[in-house]
Amino acid sequence: MTNEEMKVYLQSIIAKTPFAASLGAEVLSISPGNVELAVPVVPEKMNQHHGFVHGAILGFVADSACAWAAGSVAGDVVTSEYKLNLLAPAVGDRIIGVGSVIKASQRTVVAKAEVYAEKFGERKLVAFAVATIARFESK
Amino acid sequence: MTNEEMKVYLQSIIAKTPFAASLGAEVLSISPGNVELAVPVVPEKMNQHHGFVHGAILGFVADSACAWAAGSVAGDVVTSEYKLNLLAPAVGDRIIGVGSVIKASQRTVVAKAEVYAEKFGERKLVAFAVATIARFESK
Amino acid sequence: MTNEEMKVYLQSIIAKTPFAASLGAEVLSISPGNVELAVPVVPEKMNQHHGFVHGAILGFVADSACAWAAGSVAGDVVTSEYKLNLLAPAVGDRIIGVGSVIKASQRTVVAKAEVYAEKFGERKLVAFAVATIARFESK
Amino acid sequence: MTNEEMKVYLQSIIAKTPFAASLGAEVLSISPGNVELAVPVVPEKMNQHHGFVHGAILGFVADSACAWAAGSVAGDVVTSEYKLNLLAPAVGDRIIGVGSVIKASQRTVVAKAEVYAEKFGERKLVAFAVATIARFESK
Repeated sequence: MTNEEMKVYLQSIIAKTPFAASLGAEVLSISPGNVELAVPVVPEKMNQHHGFVHGAILGFVADSACAWAAGSVAGDVVTSEYKLNLLAPAVGDRIIGVGSVIKASQRTVVAKAEVYAEKFGERKLVAFAVATIARFESK
Repeated sequence: MTNEEMKVYLQSIIAKTPFAASLGAEVLSISPGNVELAVPVVPEKMNQHHGFVHGAILGFVADSACAWAAGSVAGDVVTSEYKLNLLAPAVGDRIIGVGSVIKASQRTVVAKAEVYAEKFGERKLVAFAVATIARFESK
Repeated sequence: MTNEEMKVYLQSIIAKTPFAASLGAEVLSISPGNVELAVPVVPEKMNQHHGFVHGAILGFVADSACAWAAGSVAGDVVTSEYKLNLLAPAVGDRIIGVGSVIKASQRTVVAKAEVYAEKFGERKLVAFAVATIARFESK
Repeated sequence: MTNEEMKVYLQSIIAKTPFAASLGAEVLSISPGNVELAVPVVPEKMNQHHGFVHGAILGFVADSACAWAAGSVAGDVVTSEYKLNLLAPAVGDRIIGVGSVIKASQRTVVAKAEVYAEKFGERKLVAFAVATIARFESK
């Protein structure tokens, strides 16, 4: 698959993933081992009670960035576990996830993700994640 | 606050937290150091492309169970970081989070959560989380 | 294997593991899914500069408790990843690790460990860990 | 402090930290937010039973790299928690830890570390860690 085909394919998976689709998740770019995605911020849907974007949205972006980066080298995958550090309050127009593979092994891929809140085109780092992603095996 | 007052108060916070409210999050019980919450499963909103409840929903339930258990002993809090292990595909009517405090220190609380998929009243463990929760300090 | 045979076998593995043996690691008890181990504290070897037992010793005890609990149900294993929360300064005569399996799947086992500093027979919780342990496959 | 003074100071802390000193830990370089350290491999002391460097040594190097990188911007610190992914068997002459600060906040610093096994001068990535480090407060 070319990067462009991978992007179209991943966007079609998102369309079949109600939770991701309902958040408006969009693939900005993908290449083997790397992915960049965006979720537009809809405060009245996505905020928590301090007025910042809810950690679960950041968790979704972080997990997706790790899983999709892993998927770009390993095909169909599922997340085994991830750790998310929330670094700063998230306020902005879009949440951006930048995922990259740290190590691809035979059965698992370890990936990391930086999560940014983007406001007027400027990005502020708001979360960092590391994930262990397993190749999916249908039974 | 009595446990019953704590429950009413926390439910009022949820009502002001659009993301939590939109998922239908409900406090089942709360006492100092412990909380149990539920999110009703709406597959057409919450599933991922393998047909299971999306990890981000489990992440929300896990993080909330940890944060609310911490909040029951520490007041207003924010999550610093959490780690989530996804243990089994989640299928069911409700996702249940059972949070409990492991250690409350002066500035942080460490808590854990078991996450269950409940089907016909039977619970299956689907995720496990540990979180570091900080007392919130307004500036 | 009976629990007693498992204990003897694990102690023989420790004897072949220089790092574990040099710390004096000892299996207190083991049964399927559960293990308890101890490391005697030698302050002049094991402390850090604030006068507490070094986090790396707690990390060793936590990781071992998780891996050995996993091994008690899965045979030869290797640690994929773990997360360790340090909860309190560790001072005492022995460091105790209590490991238990959360979920055993086909290829991995998720386990947790409580780590205690024991002084005059009294235990204080000083660390908590969660680990993903993989079945070892020789090639 | 200049970087050179920081290096001398940190090496003096190591000298007062029995566990770190006994492993022969050495600071290779340090600057605000970054540190590189090495531990010489002594197989008969540091290996586990599969013949690789024990995970606890990698854990020590990872935790130290994170804590010392944090300390280079925040002074005296203690580790709150860390997560370590073991990526490949570690075989070599030296274990190298490269720590860098992801985000320094008022009370905590989040840092990451790459851990390498170095053999004949060539480095292979064997572990990856993320840590939350707290400023130390004497009471």
